[in-house]
Amino acid sequence: MSILKNYNGFILDLDGVIYLGNQLVPHSKKCVERINRLGIKYVFVTNDCRLSALQYSQKLRNFGIPCTKEQIITPLSVLLRQLTNKSSRKTPGVLAFTSKKVRRGLKSNKNIKILDPEKDYKSAQIVLVAGSQDFNYMDLMYACLAIQNGATFYTTSKDYTFPSNYGYLIPGTGAIVAAIEKATGANAINLGKPSKAIFDIA
Amino acid sequence: MSILKNYNGFILDLDGVIYLGNQLVPHSKKCVERINRLGIKYVFVTNDCRLSALQYSQKLRNFGIPCTKEQIITPLSVLLRQLTNKSSRKTPGVLAFTSKKVRRGLKSNKNIKILDPEKDYKSAQIVLVAGSQDFNYMDLMYACLAIQNGATFYTTSKDYTFPSNYGYLIPGTGAIVAAIEKATGANAINLGKPSKAIFDIA
Repeated sequence: MSILKNYNGFILDLDGVIYLGNQLVPHSKKCVERINRLGIKYVFVTNDCRLSALQYSQKLRNFGIPCTKEQIITPLSVLLRQLTNKSSRKTPGVLAFTSKKVRRGLKSNKNIKILDPEKDYKSAQIVLVAGSQDFNYMDLMYACLAIQNGATFYTTSKDYTFPSNYGYLIPGTGAIVAAIEKATGANAINLGKPSKAIFDIA
Repeated sequence: MSILKNYNGFILDLDGVIYLGNQLVPHSKKCVERINRLGIKYVFVTNDCRLSALQYSQKLRNFGIPCTKEQIITPLSVLLRQLTNKSSRKTPGVLAFTSKKVRRGLKSNKNIKILDPEKDYKSAQIVLVAGSQDFNYMDLMYACLAIQNGATFYTTSKDYTFPSNYGYLIPGTGAIVAAIEKATGANAINLGKPSKAIFDIA
């Protein structure tokens, strides 16, 4: 008998567990298929916000792994669910420091309003740092101004580094977050693993 | 009798003490003139590297304050003197993350070789962060790569913030330095006030 039956549900990582970049990890597909056949609940959790929940579910289905977009949990889905649960009448204004792709995805969400940092930092209720590679000094400055002006500071990760092709670690979202924390004295709320928030939702 | 005579020398700050932006602070000029007439040594120390020692001395002389460029101590003059004192045969390669103006000034110095971050980060012996406003993610990354590759990490300041016209503090060199320190585990050597190095030279 499979040991899988001993569990009520599975929270599975994606990169490094189900696939590595664009290659399936050996046996990962079989394992998820078996969990699915047994009727046990499962979700996938990743800190990587470069794809949306819909895109991740499509990527998995392209591998032949059964998955709906509701089964994908990213730090951004944690934030969006938290905001939806709050019974505030006003749509919160968000300064989102992230890739163009992620920003586009966020803009299509009706529960938040993505603001222009330069024009609208004063009306931001939320500062969100999600990814680091497009970050520059002006972003850093507007993030700090909005936080000092009362915005709540969220991040999708506090990891200082991630691996690269350079043979060394390169700075991650957490390094940018550290700069903002030092300049404002604020402590960013981590929406990603290993935070409680992401596992609560999973 | 003036109490000035009780001292062997004076280390004077610039912005906020001698002048405020482009305005002389009341009595500052008279005070320096008196020190000068008494034949007491004096130097000016500033962490602000936006002007060179020569430019600061010209600015003071324009106010009518007697000053040579040797009487100006900035964190960059600390670094340049330290490098000149080292009896290394090879000119050290420097990744300088700073304003274009400061970089131009550094390029004209024969005791160091200013490198291109993208092409030459592997041969950098020194990473220098001096100012923050032109900083972007690629700078952050190359600084981290060079430091992991063995370069020594210097900064002209560890101040996380400085005042701005926005009514809030804005991120300073120290915030950028914090991001690099978190991503590399390295501890930047502070060339500026209140470090021992700058007062030793003064």
